[in-house]
Amino acid sequence: MRMGVDYYPEHWDRSMWEDDARLMRDTGISLIRVAEFAWSRLEPTEGQYDFAWLDDAISIFANHGIQVVIGTPSCTPPNWLVEKHPDVLPIDALLHPKHSGVRGHRCYNSPSMRQYTAKIVERMAAHYADHPAVIGWQTDNEFGLHECHCDHCNVRFREWLKDKYGSVEAINEAWGTVVWSGEYSSWSQITTPLGGTKHQNPSFVLDYTRFETDSVVEFQQLQIDILRKLCPNHFVTHNIWSYPMPLDYYKLCENLDFASLDYYPSTDPEKADSNGYSGALTLDLTRGVKRRNFWIMETISGPPGCWFPMWRTPHPGFIRAFGWQSIARGADTLVHFRWRSAPTGAEQFWHGLIDHSNVPGRRFEEYRQLCGEVEKLAPLLDGTEVQGEVAILHSHEQYSAFRIQPQVEGMDYFDNLKSIHRAFTKLGIMTDVLDEAADLSGYKLIIAPSLFLLDPELVSRLEEYVRNGATLILTPRTGVKNRNNVCWIQPLPGPLSEAAGVTVAEYDPIGKDTHTLRWKDGKTYSCSQWCDILEPQGADALAWYEDDFYAGQPAVTGHAVGQGNVYYVGTVPEEAFYLDFFRDIAEQLDLVRFSGLPEGVQHAVRTKGTSRYLFLLNLTRKQQTVPLDRVCQSLLDGQSIGPSLNMAPYAVEIVELSR
Amino acid sequence: MRMGVDYYPEHWDRSMWEDDARLMRDTGISLIRVAEFAWSRLEPTEGQYDFAWLDDAISIFANHGIQVVIGTPSCTPPNWLVEKHPDVLPIDALLHPKHSGVRGHRCYNSPSMRQYTAKIVERMAAHYADHPAVIGWQTDNEFGLHECHCDHCNVRFREWLKDKYGSVEAINEAWGTVVWSGEYSSWSQITTPLGGTKHQNPSFVLDYTRFETDSVVEFQQLQIDILRKLCPNHFVTHNIWSYPMPLDYYKLCENLDFASLDYYPSTDPEKADSNGYSGALTLDLTRGVKRRNFWIMETISGPPGCWFPMWRTPHPGFIRAFGWQSIARGADTLVHFRWRSAPTGAEQFWHGLIDHSNVPGRRFEEYRQLCGEVEKLAPLLDGTEVQGEVAILHSHEQYSAFRIQPQVEGMDYFDNLKSIHRAFTKLGIMTDVLDEAADLSGYKLIIAPSLFLLDPELVSRLEEYVRNGATLILTPRTGVKNRNNVCWIQPLPGPLSEAAGVTVAEYDPIGKDTHTLRWKDGKTYSCSQWCDILEPQGADALAWYEDDFYAGQPAVTGHAVGQGNVYYVGTVPEEAFYLDFFRDIAEQLDLVRFSGLPEGVQHAVRTKGTSRYLFLLNLTRKQQTVPLDRVCQSLLDGQSIGPSLNMAPYAVEIVELSR
Amino acid sequence: MRMGVDYYPEHWDRSMWEDDARLMRDTGISLIRVAEFAWSRLEPTEGQYDFAWLDDAISIFANHGIQVVIGTPSCTPPNWLVEKHPDVLPIDALLHPKHSGVRGHRCYNSPSMRQYTAKIVERMAAHYADHPAVIGWQTDNEFGLHECHCDHCNVRFREWLKDKYGSVEAINEAWGTVVWSGEYSSWSQITTPLGGTKHQNPSFVLDYTRFETDSVVEFQQLQIDILRKLCPNHFVTHNIWSYPMPLDYYKLCENLDFASLDYYPSTDPEKADSNGYSGALTLDLTRGVKRRNFWIMETISGPPGCWFPMWRTPHPGFIRAFGWQSIARGADTLVHFRWRSAPTGAEQFWHGLIDHSNVPGRRFEEYRQLCGEVEKLAPLLDGTEVQGEVAILHSHEQYSAFRIQPQVEGMDYFDNLKSIHRAFTKLGIMTDVLDEAADLSGYKLIIAPSLFLLDPELVSRLEEYVRNGATLILTPRTGVKNRNNVCWIQPLPGPLSEAAGVTVAEYDPIGKDTHTLRWKDGKTYSCSQWCDILEPQGADALAWYEDDFYAGQPAVTGHAVGQGNVYYVGTVPEEAFYLDFFRDIAEQLDLVRFSGLPEGVQHAVRTKGTSRYLFLLNLTRKQQTVPLDRVCQSLLDGQSIGPSLNMAPYAVEIVELSR
Repeated sequence: MRMGVDYYPEHWDRSMWEDDARLMRDTGISLIRVAEFAWSRLEPTEGQYDFAWLDDAISIFANHGIQVVIGTPSCTPPNWLVEKHPDVLPIDALLHPKHSGVRGHRCYNSPSMRQYTAKIVERMAAHYADHPAVIGWQTDNEFGLHECHCDHCNVRFREWLKDKYGSVEAINEAWGTVVWSGEYSSWSQITTPLGGTKHQNPSFVLDYTRFETDSVVEFQQLQIDILRKLCPNHFVTHNIWSYPMPLDYYKLCENLDFASLDYYPSTDPEKADSNGYSGALTLDLTRGVKRRNFWIMETISGPPGCWFPMWRTPHPGFIRAFGWQSIARGADTLVHFRWRSAPTGAEQFWHGLIDHSNVPGRRFEEYRQLCGEVEKLAPLLDGTEVQGEVAILHSHEQYSAFRIQPQVEGMDYFDNLKSIHRAFTKLGIMTDVLDEAADLSGYKLIIAPSLFLLDPELVSRLEEYVRNGATLILTPRTGVKNRNNVCWIQPLPGPLSEAAGVTVAEYDPIGKDTHTLRWKDGKTYSCSQWCDILEPQGADALAWYEDDFYAGQPAVTGHAVGQGNVYYVGTVPEEAFYLDFFRDIAEQLDLVRFSGLPEGVQHAVRTKGTSRYLFLLNLTRKQQTVPLDRVCQSLLDGQSIGPSLNMAPYAVEIVELSR
Repeated sequence: MRMGVDYYPEHWDRSMWEDDARLMRDTGISLIRVAEFAWSRLEPTEGQYDFAWLDDAISIFANHGIQVVIGTPSCTPPNWLVEKHPDVLPIDALLHPKHSGVRGHRCYNSPSMRQYTAKIVERMAAHYADHPAVIGWQTDNEFGLHECHCDHCNVRFREWLKDKYGSVEAINEAWGTVVWSGEYSSWSQITTPLGGTKHQNPSFVLDYTRFETDSVVEFQQLQIDILRKLCPNHFVTHNIWSYPMPLDYYKLCENLDFASLDYYPSTDPEKADSNGYSGALTLDLTRGVKRRNFWIMETISGPPGCWFPMWRTPHPGFIRAFGWQSIARGADTLVHFRWRSAPTGAEQFWHGLIDHSNVPGRRFEEYRQLCGEVEKLAPLLDGTEVQGEVAILHSHEQYSAFRIQPQVEGMDYFDNLKSIHRAFTKLGIMTDVLDEAADLSGYKLIIAPSLFLLDPELVSRLEEYVRNGATLILTPRTGVKNRNNVCWIQPLPGPLSEAAGVTVAEYDPIGKDTHTLRWKDGKTYSCSQWCDILEPQGADALAWYEDDFYAGQPAVTGHAVGQGNVYYVGTVPEEAFYLDFFRDIAEQLDLVRFSGLPEGVQHAVRTKGTSRYLFLLNLTRKQQTVPLDRVCQSLLDGQSIGPSLNMAPYAVEIVELSR
Repeated sequence: MRMGVDYYPEHWDRSMWEDDARLMRDTGISLIRVAEFAWSRLEPTEGQYDFAWLDDAISIFANHGIQVVIGTPSCTPPNWLVEKHPDVLPIDALLHPKHSGVRGHRCYNSPSMRQYTAKIVERMAAHYADHPAVIGWQTDNEFGLHECHCDHCNVRFREWLKDKYGSVEAINEAWGTVVWSGEYSSWSQITTPLGGTKHQNPSFVLDYTRFETDSVVEFQQLQIDILRKLCPNHFVTHNIWSYPMPLDYYKLCENLDFASLDYYPSTDPEKADSNGYSGALTLDLTRGVKRRNFWIMETISGPPGCWFPMWRTPHPGFIRAFGWQSIARGADTLVHFRWRSAPTGAEQFWHGLIDHSNVPGRRFEEYRQLCGEVEKLAPLLDGTEVQGEVAILHSHEQYSAFRIQPQVEGMDYFDNLKSIHRAFTKLGIMTDVLDEAADLSGYKLIIAPSLFLLDPELVSRLEEYVRNGATLILTPRTGVKNRNNVCWIQPLPGPLSEAAGVTVAEYDPIGKDTHTLRWKDGKTYSCSQWCDILEPQGADALAWYEDDFYAGQPAVTGHAVGQGNVYYVGTVPEEAFYLDFFRDIAEQLDLVRFSGLPEGVQHAVRTKGTSRYLFLLNLTRKQQTVPLDRVCQSLLDGQSIGPSLNMAPYAVEIVELSR
């Protein structure tokens, strides 16, 4: 467990390197990430490599005990490469190239791009394979999907389809292209989705999205292969930008050692009560990508800003608290972005720990405190992990399918996932957020929000978990389509109807309208977005609608299956419903829970063997009181705290749990 | 009078056809529309026609007594055609093609498009000319204007201008191109309005809009000619998409047997009090296109949705009530879209009568009831027609001219037309909504909203109607321009000033600001958008402004001309004004009126000879009471109703009027 | 001092010219501007010049004593030129040409455009050099920046950069292109900022903006050179469109005789209390461009409207009052746009003094009154000038730099300048608004809002003014960057820290959030946008924040330097703060001030020798009372007015000040 910063030696006069290294060491920094945008310095013209400057920089930092992660520079092909091989530029749906000058101007399928990327990565890997200060690699930077419609992508897309389907007839069948006379009679008629319209065949677009992910994965694998071969002792990771994203991070990270995250919680005071919860989901998602601890490769050090207006400056305590939140939820290393704000370029106002003034200030002092605390607790926390009893399923494909065909105004796959996760976080229940394809054995409770696309294999697995004792919760728009984005011709929730013991007689896409739900105990809740009118086929009705022509009809059902239970929640209720519903289930299943968390205060537990470390984080601008229910010793300052714990704004406490 | 559905045999496994046909017959369906998007199945590759599958389908349905309307598939040229002749694709103002994959990807002026369209229509017409189950044709699908700037369109546009003007000098003169040095010195300098800017010469843009309509009309005429020649016993129609549209439907339908409409009233509960009124206008407009009864070729069967989020599901009674509304206002056949929701393609969630589940549900049962009722009343209603005493003038050209040069914020030609029509509908007065070019002899009252473009011929006709006894109502922005979209150099309302007996001394485009109007009886009303300050030249002032520097100046005038009267309303008043003003005029003119309609309840009357059938439609979600003022027998269920009629939400009553 | 109108003989039948001229003369008009869009009439086809029609027109007007300003027609290259040399069209960042049909379709760097422009200007200049009625020229029309990315512009941009930097290495260094591997290794890699993204290197984009200004300046200079040579007795001016603009008007007007302004104050009643203040700034800016009196070349005569919806009609008195406001702040000639509304073209509804009806109405009568008054007072006012004791600095470059990188939501360089200027106007203090590069000797008070880009030369000058006794006020975001748009590596306000005696310890971009400021006397004010947390280094704290973690920290400081003072206002306060703060300073500095102006009433003073003329303008729709504090004689009507002066809506008073 350690602290690092993102550092760009090429942005600064060499005369500053030594001072920077010394101040880092004195602050408690033992790691820098470098070079991920430095192609034009590492290969100033074709074939002329210049690593001397980076060697010098690394050696200065190494002399101060600072280790190095190197980023491959494939996010920013240099101007000479663009000039010589314009096909490295991605082409949008209207056939406009994305020009250089910004970053990310590279087509993942461009042969030139791949060839020159391989060359520079090989050179860098060979050069730094045995450098004692270099410990690992970051591939590229913040991979994302950006549509490319160049000739190479069109050729590759057709090859990808040939591999998947074999014939145009099979594509016509799978996608239902007969609608609107879209049938292909030859391969040459198939193109990427040109024109930028949203009205394309959804099966086609979903496959194109998969192709895009596969293009990124291939582009990265080229680099991984080189790094594995030449630097067998180094780790390889990638810095995930954000969620939600159609890019499938599970595939992207499959061959990496661990995932890394670029984490920028909002500093907006109006979001001060909510950003901690979305952050918790982001961290849990990242831990779930590889089902293991991860790194923070970038995180907030000051107000971000550049082509968009600046955010508020982080409130005192904010940087430290969100640093500890990251660790609490599974980060083993924090690398802050960035050491010092850049004086040039488009990100001038994406502030570092130190301002342009080069005078360390309030934020730097707070960061220094965090470094000291991490150093102090590292021996305890090293090797600890986070483990939940509850799994929430997540899927980049479901997200893409919803994006391709929004179901109703206000219904957002990821927002609904967020609401569910937030309810568990508020209840003090740790969750693992996992790919829908993950093995879920051992989880007591599985939440599967909106399994829009459903295949028999996933159905079988879920049914088996339930038969073996798991509780499964389903929500609306489950089982609508198969993996080709084609509707099942059977009552909803489609192939999961049997397990759910219920069918959907009819639905009303109520969108932003609000209806009311009545639980069997008489308590009512509002709901919105969607109303499935349920017809129990063996399940018990648990809640009913109060409005509209379906007043009195079931809205939520429960169904005992084998050792387990399947709940179907046919609408999107307000948070109060989730809190009550999940609390009840938690009690039934005897889930571990930290009770009594005030709004905005989060807990988390990291464990190793019998050691259990409790983190309490006040991620708000308010003073808060937490019922710790006992007196503990703070691991941070050794003070006794509790039984009632007063937490200042952005306060953090860490204690060892005896139980 | 009959019921039908839109059916796509090519979307379903053949094994389902027989069951579908049987259920249709049992439900009371006697008609299907087919094939309008099936080009890729009817001609899978160039010149290879395959009608066998359609023959099989039609024969199955024919065996169940179901007749067939065939759509020509020219809305969706297949991929092989696009690949071989890319010039079929329309090109936008920035020269980007509209790609295939969606529908409507065809340039109306493309020689390839016309040639291949002619071929497939000829083949289909020849093949089905004598089929006993086939009764008629729909051309293409929902024609609309989509700008095309391809070379063919540029050539054709220049030819069109040569035909109209003869010389570039004449164009320069007619359009006033001297402004901003836009004068043409050769034909080759004239292009379609490239670049997509809204700042072009308005005379040029209006002529381009006319050219666009003529292009559609020509494209359709090619098909009509073939169908008339090969299928002399079949009718030919087209399904109009919606209003408002710059495409001139009067020209489009000139050579068709009757017009058809695709009618999708909004299911939004917030629009539940207004959607019936816009619907009434849509239906009256469609009846006016050919001045005769029409078909509904598509109408709502469930929540629409596809690339846009889904609407609310139709409330119980909604489908039936809006079906009856269509008939009440002149529809002779209702074809519901669609039999069953498509499992594939971009319109997956544009719901049919039956859901993807293939289990007929609530909406289907309601539709079945409607089928039974229509079957029962058909003998009475066959041959009945709708006839009003009031004509409201409408013009696609005026709409285009306003679109090209919006006059003031909030002023919308069609919205203002809608307000006027709604007032009459609320007053229980049936109106005919007719092309401004229509013969209006016999109408007691003519409303001519915003005759922005005015030519002497129209002025003469209107003056003659008035002299012969008609009452004419004019509104602001009348007589501003000639047909070249060039301003008249004379006081407003231009050539109609004499008939109106008034001139506009000055105007104030008040937009969204609100002013007050005082009627001669002292009652006040708010007004907005526009204030013409009137100077009576023989007319009597009837209302005056209360605000601003023109407080006390006339806002409304009346002028006796021959046997008739001309009113000039110089502003856009609130609905209360229209209700009082039109009610007064109705009393003066002794117009037939159904008094006492509550908000949202509509009446309509269909007549044949001395038979008169009254329809009462509660198009709201509320219980309503209608003063029927006598006891009648419901034609639907034979019950006695009245004198005060309680109507449940979406209730419908039909009675024969004795008088 | 005289009155004129914009007149387009080519828009009207020749038979109307004589009547128009006579009415103009009778109204008091002695000047027309002509021909600035008439290229297609002056050179109908290449090389065929036709000035006969213009000669005829000018001679008719000259016969009525009306003089003529001719516009060069380079804003509207005719169709034959576009057809023969398509490279005259500008090309946008996505490589779409801006087509003809509208105006401004010309690339400033196109060799064809320059060559043909030179030819027509030479011909016109030669033809009219000795015409007795012609007195001067307007270049082109409302120059603006429109990005062009054609090959010529790319070539010229590279040449421009070579001139400025000499080598690509120097560019890399100056712009910091190393960020994101943007380093150039050859000139051929440098292009204009293609693709339209906002994420480009800000140093690059700022230089491109400068290049754009220089392109306009060069394009104009070509014309100026011809006009100076052939018409040595004529003046040359240009009509400035508006502020704010990235185009550097100071450079544009450098070689002109005087600046002209197209002035269209908003007629929106909701802006009736504010449009006079923005107008005052616009006029002061224009007077500052050449630091001398100017012309109004176009101004409001009726409701504007064309591709945008029409505005409200000018309220009675509006045209006259804003005409007098223009004169009060330095206009020596008013040319109203336009004589009569155009019947054709895109600007049909940009209303002239006379409507399409050709019947002079209310607005014309008001204009006639204005003409009479100007004629009466001209002898007194000729040669008078406006002189302030306060200079407000303005910079098109600062505006561009803020536009390239918006600092925080709601922070707008020009809006903040406007707030400051408005406070002075409300306080009755005349200000000069000058280029930051101007010589400011003699000003008692200098306000320098947000000197974002700062160079040592400007710093030295400002420091010297202060040492010599001036008071200088600085605001947030001062001294952030050097002229390359690269951040200074030193505490803010950068090179001005020493003079300000303060540094910025940290800042909080609060954007639309609101904080509170407490002045040393205890009075509090709200502030927003930005909070600099100040650390006095010799300065005295004058106000402190009341909120957030920096409550109690200084927000405003004052620092005595030599004979003068430097104030640093670290936030953007509400107007009440500026009013109090500037009033205090005005008292300390004994600035001339007209006290007691009600909201919306403005004063101005023009002087010549010892003569001082006071203008009082009620630019609102309300009756207002002004404390004139003595009895004066109105120069307009000779009546005695005061000591308390009642002013009707849009009333104007002019008196000679005895003091």
